[in-house]
Amino acid sequence: MDAKEIIRELAQAARGAAGVLAGSRGAQRDEALRSCAEAIRAGKDRLQAENEKDLARAGELGLTEAMIDRLRLTDARIEAMAVGLEEIAAQTDPVGQAICAYNRPNGLRIEKRRCPIGVIGIVYESRPNVTADAAGLCLKSANACILRGGKEAIHSNLAIAAVLREGLAGANLPAECVTVLESTDRAMVPAMATAEGLIDLIIPRGGESLIRAVAEAATIPVIKHYNGVCHVYVHADADLKMAEKIVLNAKCQRPGVCNAAETLLVDAAVAQAFLPGAAEALRRNKVELRGCEKSRALVPDMKTAAEDDWRAEYLDLILAVRVVDGLEAAVEHINTYGSKHTDAIITGNLVAAERFVTAVDSASVMVNASTRFSDGAQYGLGAEIGISTDKLHARGPMGAEDLTTYKWIVTGAGHIRE
Amino acid sequence: MDAKEIIRELAQAARGAAGVLAGSRGAQRDEALRSCAEAIRAGKDRLQAENEKDLARAGELGLTEAMIDRLRLTDARIEAMAVGLEEIAAQTDPVGQAICAYNRPNGLRIEKRRCPIGVIGIVYESRPNVTADAAGLCLKSANACILRGGKEAIHSNLAIAAVLREGLAGANLPAECVTVLESTDRAMVPAMATAEGLIDLIIPRGGESLIRAVAEAATIPVIKHYNGVCHVYVHADADLKMAEKIVLNAKCQRPGVCNAAETLLVDAAVAQAFLPGAAEALRRNKVELRGCEKSRALVPDMKTAAEDDWRAEYLDLILAVRVVDGLEAAVEHINTYGSKHTDAIITGNLVAAERFVTAVDSASVMVNASTRFSDGAQYGLGAEIGISTDKLHARGPMGAEDLTTYKWIVTGAGHIRE
Repeated sequence: MDAKEIIRELAQAARGAAGVLAGSRGAQRDEALRSCAEAIRAGKDRLQAENEKDLARAGELGLTEAMIDRLRLTDARIEAMAVGLEEIAAQTDPVGQAICAYNRPNGLRIEKRRCPIGVIGIVYESRPNVTADAAGLCLKSANACILRGGKEAIHSNLAIAAVLREGLAGANLPAECVTVLESTDRAMVPAMATAEGLIDLIIPRGGESLIRAVAEAATIPVIKHYNGVCHVYVHADADLKMAEKIVLNAKCQRPGVCNAAETLLVDAAVAQAFLPGAAEALRRNKVELRGCEKSRALVPDMKTAAEDDWRAEYLDLILAVRVVDGLEAAVEHINTYGSKHTDAIITGNLVAAERFVTAVDSASVMVNASTRFSDGAQYGLGAEIGISTDKLHARGPMGAEDLTTYKWIVTGAGHIRE
Repeated sequence: MDAKEIIRELAQAARGAAGVLAGSRGAQRDEALRSCAEAIRAGKDRLQAENEKDLARAGELGLTEAMIDRLRLTDARIEAMAVGLEEIAAQTDPVGQAICAYNRPNGLRIEKRRCPIGVIGIVYESRPNVTADAAGLCLKSANACILRGGKEAIHSNLAIAAVLREGLAGANLPAECVTVLESTDRAMVPAMATAEGLIDLIIPRGGESLIRAVAEAATIPVIKHYNGVCHVYVHADADLKMAEKIVLNAKCQRPGVCNAAETLLVDAAVAQAFLPGAAEALRRNKVELRGCEKSRALVPDMKTAAEDDWRAEYLDLILAVRVVDGLEAAVEHINTYGSKHTDAIITGNLVAAERFVTAVDSASVMVNASTRFSDGAQYGLGAEIGISTDKLHARGPMGAEDLTTYKWIVTGAGHIRE
């Protein structure tokens, strides 16, 4: 069978499971999630044995030390997968919620009711725990899922899927609720992305090239998760001590993640008062600074930023620094060079904050808070499937609710149109 | 310039206008809508003169009488465009609405606030009044739009755009809020559909081949508007008089539209009591029936339905008829052959209604009401941009609110992550 046929067959089975899930009660899905958590704990030895097979091939596949570390299923990571599923089980059920409901003048009752999307395809790389997280969120929202992880984690991913299917059986749900592709053939990804009528949505998670490949092949809807070029803008009316604390946190607390700050914009009005001290504090935290000419006039031993630095996602202890002439210039910089992920303003001025919030075209806009808060758990969504950089359907951190759609339910008493 | 360059240039100008719109007040946009309505009334003679140019070429382009009729800008249609814009102006502003807002335990304030999407591309066919409707809904929701109508209506569409731009100027908004492509080059459609970072969403409205072409070319999000294969299912516990009245309405009141019924499913339990009388009433209304073997046993002079009939969107006075063994068989038929648009159950049984509503995977599910109610105006959404058959972002009738996205606004008092 070629890739398209394999996907058709698996997706048809998944659609059957999706039909069962659509009619299931929340209690049954939560029971399945807890049952999956138990199966993961009980299957620890098997999971680690399969994980060893992946680790043994890591050198031959040319994985870096960091990638090998992320691949490893330690005791703690296996327990974390189980706890993650239990936490998803404890969340509110998004299915069946009324988004709104009202009567029309003619007596028709209209309800916009949340329901599952159907079959969701997820394409990801490296970390095998994504398999459990993604399957758990799809199950919570009553969707069947087809998961395609990287070839470097294929044994681990298949072992996790086998364990999850035991968990599903424990709650009397079909195994086809969760499918991990056995084949690591590259042709599977475009086959998934063009499975119209079979897969309802595809979510790529990983590097930019993976996401771009999915978006270009896709004829079904895609929700993209590009990375973050996040800004902190220190406004003229900022509390400068607060600003320094937030810049340090946004850059240094965890520099390798998408919601870490990459560029600092400083209002010209406070550049002299703010920048030399902030630069010193950043350097004490081992941050390399790359500045515009005006920044370098205030902090002379800073490297010169090139045009590319304004677009860079360093994911490292490097920060681009630019002095801007006021709020509109900051907005212009962010909307030109940013990635519409997360951007912050530090200000005590309410009008400035409101203008920034309206004008910055990003998924999350922070006022007097670190960009690092841009995260599903921090927003109270529970586990997240990712942080969407798209504007359609779901934007920013995506939780189980964002894996639902809605249907219009119209109830009459024999109503006809005149 | 090739198509990609033309689109890039126009879309960049539109992005500038979108920035102005994002920062504009609702009152200004409503004033612009009313000003556009006045400009349309004042420009009637010009519009009709340009429309004559299109009508003069209609024969040479091979348009049918029905297409020529839809193309004609009569006095009444021009007035209807103006009234349509005034009605959009009178709707509630979707921009700035809080979808939800709450405090986190750490004191962070989280708000999910509606905002415009940015630049929306709309590709459509034939009726020039779509130009005014689509532009009006985009303007209401603070989006700039790039419109690509059919070549058969190019003079009319450009004239409407020119008049709308006068209206925009009357409210001090940039002309680039509304752009109609001057070129009718086919390469414009894929150029729009791949304008990543320039156009945020593309909505194709028209025949299936147009929609498919856009979906296949697109790397940006698409919301598809496929047609309707709508069902009416007469359940065992239906009020049979009500059922007959609804079937007649769903089929005959306006057979050429997407929410008209195309297939009647009759529960075997009531087939004998219902079908002969209903068939007679349908025939009195000039409806041709095509039935399954069981239907033909009850109404012998019915034509035999072929497999293709279950998938047919007749848009005509033809109805496929099938006797089904209970509710699950009806659901199975609808989910297999339907188009996920609008499907109805007629029943007095609450459990059956709830099961049907949950299990049918369609944008609108009607209980004891005609499928013809599946419509933005009937749902109280005001004017609609179309009826989405996709599940992502917007499903079913789409109004101005569905042309918005949201951003997360997070307000702290110097909050950092520990």
